[in-house]
Amino acid sequence: MRKVFQAELQEVREELAEIAQLVAEALDKAVESFESADVELAQEVIAADARIDFKQTALDEKAIEILALQGPVASDLRTIVASLRMSASLERMGDLARHIAQLTRLRYPENAAPEALRRTFGKMAELDQSIIRDVAELLATHDLTLVAKIQGSNAELDELHASIFRAIAEPSWSASPSSSVDAALASRYFERFADHGVSVARKVSYLVTGEWDGDMTSS
Amino acid sequence: MRKVFQAELQEVREELAEIAQLVAEALDKAVESFESADVELAQEVIAADARIDFKQTALDEKAIEILALQGPVASDLRTIVASLRMSASLERMGDLARHIAQLTRLRYPENAAPEALRRTFGKMAELDQSIIRDVAELLATHDLTLVAKIQGSNAELDELHASIFRAIAEPSWSASPSSSVDAALASRYFERFADHGVSVARKVSYLVTGEWDGDMTSS
Repeated sequence: MRKVFQAELQEVREELAEIAQLVAEALDKAVESFESADVELAQEVIAADARIDFKQTALDEKAIEILALQGPVASDLRTIVASLRMSASLERMGDLARHIAQLTRLRYPENAAPEALRRTFGKMAELDQSIIRDVAELLATHDLTLVAKIQGSNAELDELHASIFRAIAEPSWSASPSSSVDAALASRYFERFADHGVSVARKVSYLVTGEWDGDMTSS
Repeated sequence: MRKVFQAELQEVREELAEIAQLVAEALDKAVESFESADVELAQEVIAADARIDFKQTALDEKAIEILALQGPVASDLRTIVASLRMSASLERMGDLARHIAQLTRLRYPENAAPEALRRTFGKMAELDQSIIRDVAELLATHDLTLVAKIQGSNAELDELHASIFRAIAEPSWSASPSSSVDAALASRYFERFADHGVSVARKVSYLVTGEWDGDMTSS
């Protein structure tokens, strides 16, 4: 029984890493479409999000089945519950990649990122790309050195997010109101993406060490 | 055993309704602070959010304990899993009320809602207030006629959300870029609040009828 359970747990872990991989691909394409106003690529991201949602539903069904058939307790139970939460975070990260693609599509043929902020958005995108790759690796390997790295990337991203709002408030800011709104929303999507990444990282850390550094329930 | 379990389930249900009640109070105060640029009230909402988070954590711990001690299966298991998700949605609704208060505090002594949109925001706020009250009642009574009402309010809110973005894109729009961004973010917070309300409503509906009208996992 125990052996079956461990194998099932391993499967859940691999599934989570696989979903993270799909989210990484979605983000790459969303970023590329956002940076180059590529509406076809944006469309692809929007359509592909259903696959992430489907995989999350399947994983959750599996987790619920494990709960029903194995009745795990203690740390095994917490692993399953945490998996349900991590899958919700990953699904939400997929949604945020889709939101970036939707912003691109909405503004096409214009570029959703105002000229003056493209470098900043470029850096934000890179940080998110590194976060989701680190999350996928963390899920697959449980290498906890990645947790601090993810948190560090998130802190950098928060700073860039704040800098975008400062730039929009500058007297020299000259973009249109709609363009300003696009920038603020895109910035928020990039920032939220990272928050969810940190949330997953902290849950893995908790499962491995048994120590929680804060609020278990946030996602 | 079964009787104990039913009593515990009833407790979870009451706790969820109680958290929804706290979220309703937070939203009322957030809306009032937002509409009148009342920074002290905003501060109160921001400080009180920790209580909602705490109650969510406590409820989740209780749900995990029930899983461990009772090992529920079938519909009982799904009820517990859905409760974990509903508590996450309610906690997130509390966060969104806090975000509205934070926007108020950030802009103080100015009003975060541009003059031209105050009526629209007033209507959005009313719809969210009706949604969270309906959610609290739905959790307490399982009266499913409330589900369609919540979905209807959400549809109205989506329309108002879109109208705010249209207003910002009008050539006649004259607010500053920062003020435009505030309006867009506030609108998004109101709209997301309603989405989470719908998510809770659909889960209750699923638990009562056993029929799911869509994606179980979204929150």
